[in-house]
Amino acid sequence: MPDVIPADSVGIVTPQTAQFDTPLALSCGQTLSSYQLVYETYGTLNKNASNAILICHALSGDHHAAGYHKMTDNKPGWWDTAIGPGKAIDTNTFFVVALNNLGGCSGSTGPTSINPQTGQRWEASFPIVTVEDWVESQARLADVLGIQTFAAIVGGSLGGMQVLEWSIRFPTRLKSAVIVASAPKLSTQNIAFNEVARQSIRRDPEFFDGNYLDNHSVPTNGLGLARMLGHITYLSDDAMGAKFGRQMRHDNYQYNYGIEFEVESYLRYQGEAFTKRFDANTYMLMTKALDYFDPASQTNGDLSAVLSRAQCAFLLVSFTTDWRFAPERSEEIVNALIKAGKPVSYAKIEATEGHDAFLFPIPRYMAVLNTFLTRIANHIITEVK
Amino acid sequence: MPDVIPADSVGIVTPQTAQFDTPLALSCGQTLSSYQLVYETYGTLNKNASNAILICHALSGDHHAAGYHKMTDNKPGWWDTAIGPGKAIDTNTFFVVALNNLGGCSGSTGPTSINPQTGQRWEASFPIVTVEDWVESQARLADVLGIQTFAAIVGGSLGGMQVLEWSIRFPTRLKSAVIVASAPKLSTQNIAFNEVARQSIRRDPEFFDGNYLDNHSVPTNGLGLARMLGHITYLSDDAMGAKFGRQMRHDNYQYNYGIEFEVESYLRYQGEAFTKRFDANTYMLMTKALDYFDPASQTNGDLSAVLSRAQCAFLLVSFTTDWRFAPERSEEIVNALIKAGKPVSYAKIEATEGHDAFLFPIPRYMAVLNTFLTRIANHIITEVK
Repeated sequence: MPDVIPADSVGIVTPQTAQFDTPLALSCGQTLSSYQLVYETYGTLNKNASNAILICHALSGDHHAAGYHKMTDNKPGWWDTAIGPGKAIDTNTFFVVALNNLGGCSGSTGPTSINPQTGQRWEASFPIVTVEDWVESQARLADVLGIQTFAAIVGGSLGGMQVLEWSIRFPTRLKSAVIVASAPKLSTQNIAFNEVARQSIRRDPEFFDGNYLDNHSVPTNGLGLARMLGHITYLSDDAMGAKFGRQMRHDNYQYNYGIEFEVESYLRYQGEAFTKRFDANTYMLMTKALDYFDPASQTNGDLSAVLSRAQCAFLLVSFTTDWRFAPERSEEIVNALIKAGKPVSYAKIEATEGHDAFLFPIPRYMAVLNTFLTRIANHIITEVK
Repeated sequence: MPDVIPADSVGIVTPQTAQFDTPLALSCGQTLSSYQLVYETYGTLNKNASNAILICHALSGDHHAAGYHKMTDNKPGWWDTAIGPGKAIDTNTFFVVALNNLGGCSGSTGPTSINPQTGQRWEASFPIVTVEDWVESQARLADVLGIQTFAAIVGGSLGGMQVLEWSIRFPTRLKSAVIVASAPKLSTQNIAFNEVARQSIRRDPEFFDGNYLDNHSVPTNGLGLARMLGHITYLSDDAMGAKFGRQMRHDNYQYNYGIEFEVESYLRYQGEAFTKRFDANTYMLMTKALDYFDPASQTNGDLSAVLSRAQCAFLLVSFTTDWRFAPERSEEIVNALIKAGKPVSYAKIEATEGHDAFLFPIPRYMAVLNTFLTRIANHIITEVK
């Protein structure tokens, strides 16, 4: 990090932990008797608690969305480009809450936590949680923080699915929903990629049916493979081409299975780095949460019908080169909202970065986000007056 | 197979083996002192040997392109829909030759063969072969068969790359080149998918650095994973959606890692079936041959310059939903040929099947192929007269 905290950074932040002792009934039928959620906040909650924004993270995200934990951190939180004083999600105006979801591996209760019933690590016995379960647990966190209604709930990718679920499940608890690079449900191809990722992990002999930590092991080969595959789907073909092309490690072909092209090196590095910070069981259950999400299944496949429950304003954002959650998938949501007569804004952003674009500070994207949230802020201020 | 051989089938065919004892210098610098190629032929070679068509196979193909080996076969050769009496590649007119490429696992010399120098199986020590090596060995097979000039050389995907190489390397030895669903070189994304497939195999502990047979094992988990991933890229998102959608195995979600969606079952089945018929070392080297192919590298990246050596007529075919080798990739070849002043026909075929479309008897595709080859046939007959 820089020697001096930048003026538009939220600065040094400290994660907090909320303990929940009211049992949580999960979609799968199991109940968590108690659990913890780790979270961070940026900015100040106003008197009537009307300026809060909840950030929902994607597959490999966590609660550390902005700022630094300490001056020696190499990099700030994962969405620092969007969250801070004067940034698109302006912490001079809003009180921003970011948490690590249940089942995660960054501090919230998940497979690497101790099961209080047994005194042992959960590992494979941790229940598969769903987007619905996450939203339920996020609502309880809001209760603890004294937030009845969020000014906005914001999320990209899997995070966007949580936002969509909020708008259906707790229609009165959010003024606006910002859904970026997301989809109302996975396509068959999305599920297929997830299944290959899961099989990569499960087929690693170090996986031990999910109880690897108790076997003093980690399925790094399988988790690394899953991440390599993920990276291909996060980038566009063009972005990969522009970044690496057919750039070679050596002057000539080596005719062996070492690294020949730079893209191979990139993928291996990304795969390996991921295994040092992420838990394989968490990765598996996150992919299942993605697979399962399908709110329209409650209304016989009619997305518009289920979205008719929503009472908030919507902003949808997609990116031209995103083939994992293509613009057409966002437009399914937009069209269903229009059909349901809901207020919806939509921006398809020109971007070369593929699905990853939702993490980049693309000027038009940031402007769209800021304009929408400023309108929400003005509305809140008017209400307060 | 049916009780009676269909009238438009080439019928019962018997693979033949050609032995080569003239050393073959490979691109990698190694030399094969001797080797065998297994092949099949359909139809009759005419007196002046001017009616021969060579079929080049793709990644997982072999020499059994049409007909049946025995009456109890479950299915005919892999391109039986296109090759036979009265079919697009008409065996009443043409003498069709299909071979298993060097490095293959269906009878030609490859990793599972015995290395005559050592008396042991080659396994990991089998050299990585290239498209150039294949074309060289195919030309020697043509010599054995008494074919100086092919009426056409035809191939899809990796097979199309061999056809392109033929047109550059042996310009006088083919009258026409039919290149289907192919590309002048892999994109970065293509290479990335290949690298994940190779890593899937290499990280399987049963791989034993490629010497699994000597260790009485087979890396079925890794090879199966590679094939599962392959299948996702062969199908279009739409084709997968149409075929499986979100169709479930059970009435409700099971909240475990068993088969939940039918597409998961399909992929696991395809992966497992492949491991019973294909060799992992062959799969690895085929993906390297794909990665390496880049004829324009001989002319500083100018595809048109290298193709200026060609003397044949070209037919290029692509399929609208193919995202592995998208139509734009075929069009790169078409445009380079036009720039080089070569005769080229091009058809972009509406198809829902993605890359797999090149194996389907899509009427317009078959008609284009047949019309082009009929023109070649008429030209040959005119010459003979």
